[in-house]
Amino acid sequence: MANSKYEEKTVKTDPIFKGKVISLQVDHVRLPNGEIATREIVKHPGAVAVLAVHEGKMLVVEQYRKPMERSLVEIPAGKLEPGEDPAEAAIRELEEETGFRCESVRPVASFFTSPGFADEILHLYVAEGLTEGVAKPDEDEFLDFSAIDLATAKRYIAEGRIRDAKTIAAVYAWQMHALTGSYGP
Amino acid sequence: MANSKYEEKTVKTDPIFKGKVISLQVDHVRLPNGEIATREIVKHPGAVAVLAVHEGKMLVVEQYRKPMERSLVEIPAGKLEPGEDPAEAAIRELEEETGFRCESVRPVASFFTSPGFADEILHLYVAEGLTEGVAKPDEDEFLDFSAIDLATAKRYIAEGRIRDAKTIAAVYAWQMHALTGSYGP
Repeated sequence: MANSKYEEKTVKTDPIFKGKVISLQVDHVRLPNGEIATREIVKHPGAVAVLAVHEGKMLVVEQYRKPMERSLVEIPAGKLEPGEDPAEAAIRELEEETGFRCESVRPVASFFTSPGFADEILHLYVAEGLTEGVAKPDEDEFLDFSAIDLATAKRYIAEGRIRDAKTIAAVYAWQMHALTGSYGP
Repeated sequence: MANSKYEEKTVKTDPIFKGKVISLQVDHVRLPNGEIATREIVKHPGAVAVLAVHEGKMLVVEQYRKPMERSLVEIPAGKLEPGEDPAEAAIRELEEETGFRCESVRPVASFFTSPGFADEILHLYVAEGLTEGVAKPDEDEFLDFSAIDLATAKRYIAEGRIRDAKTIAAVYAWQMHALTGSYGP
């Protein structure tokens, strides 16, 4: 499918770390000009996120994000379990984090979050057929669930409370749907 | 600014790796319920990316992305040098990768790419006052520069040739500007 004329052939891989969420390796690669370079590569199982709009408001969770040492307001999201279908994972995460069930999810976009150093792919869905319920987050997830209208979402972006790629993409998708009838980029 | 009632206090930090681009550490944290958990954290210097539209076409570069073992079509982007102003970095990367100079850049959005495991922030700009020139990529960057119209960008997204967060956000911003006069989410 994609052009690979600049392919970087692996000469050697140094495994550095294997954690609960990510692993890290350093690949020694041969560049197209014959020289050797290193590539620092984070492996990640992939993730899902859900744009869920209920009565004109987007469902969001606020949680502490240790890498930034601050909390962020984000759409419901989570890592893929091994072998898990992304659409099913999206439905599961939505219910765990917000209590809302949905009949189905429709793909909006899938994207690599940091293609320079990580293989993480994030699948963004829009939820259809929402019904309210009770949240049941994982034991080590501490989340505040809320629902915000578009004006609030834009204010949160301006204030930096919303500041992650998937939630920014979701807010674009939400507005795009209002303007054109389509969520996609 | 942001709510920190779920703050995770660092008990201990294990430095794991220090590379050319990223470093990795494992933080042992005390959760709000008193229990101890670990957080795998990638540190990154931050990055910039530029939406540059010349004669109705978006400037893009195709390059091999080792974490995915394939090439991707992306907007011009690059890491921040230590202490570098993000707007100046955006202007520098645009010229290095495409040859195009711009009079100024305007912020569109800034977002954390993978807030669960990395502190990378990406600053997305739109370029203003473009003039054509000659690309001069870094020595170990092998790039194919081109300019694509919106229909082609959408086709590339459908085909998976465009598949990264910053370029998806840029295509949303480009369309949003055509529809509303504003690039922002």
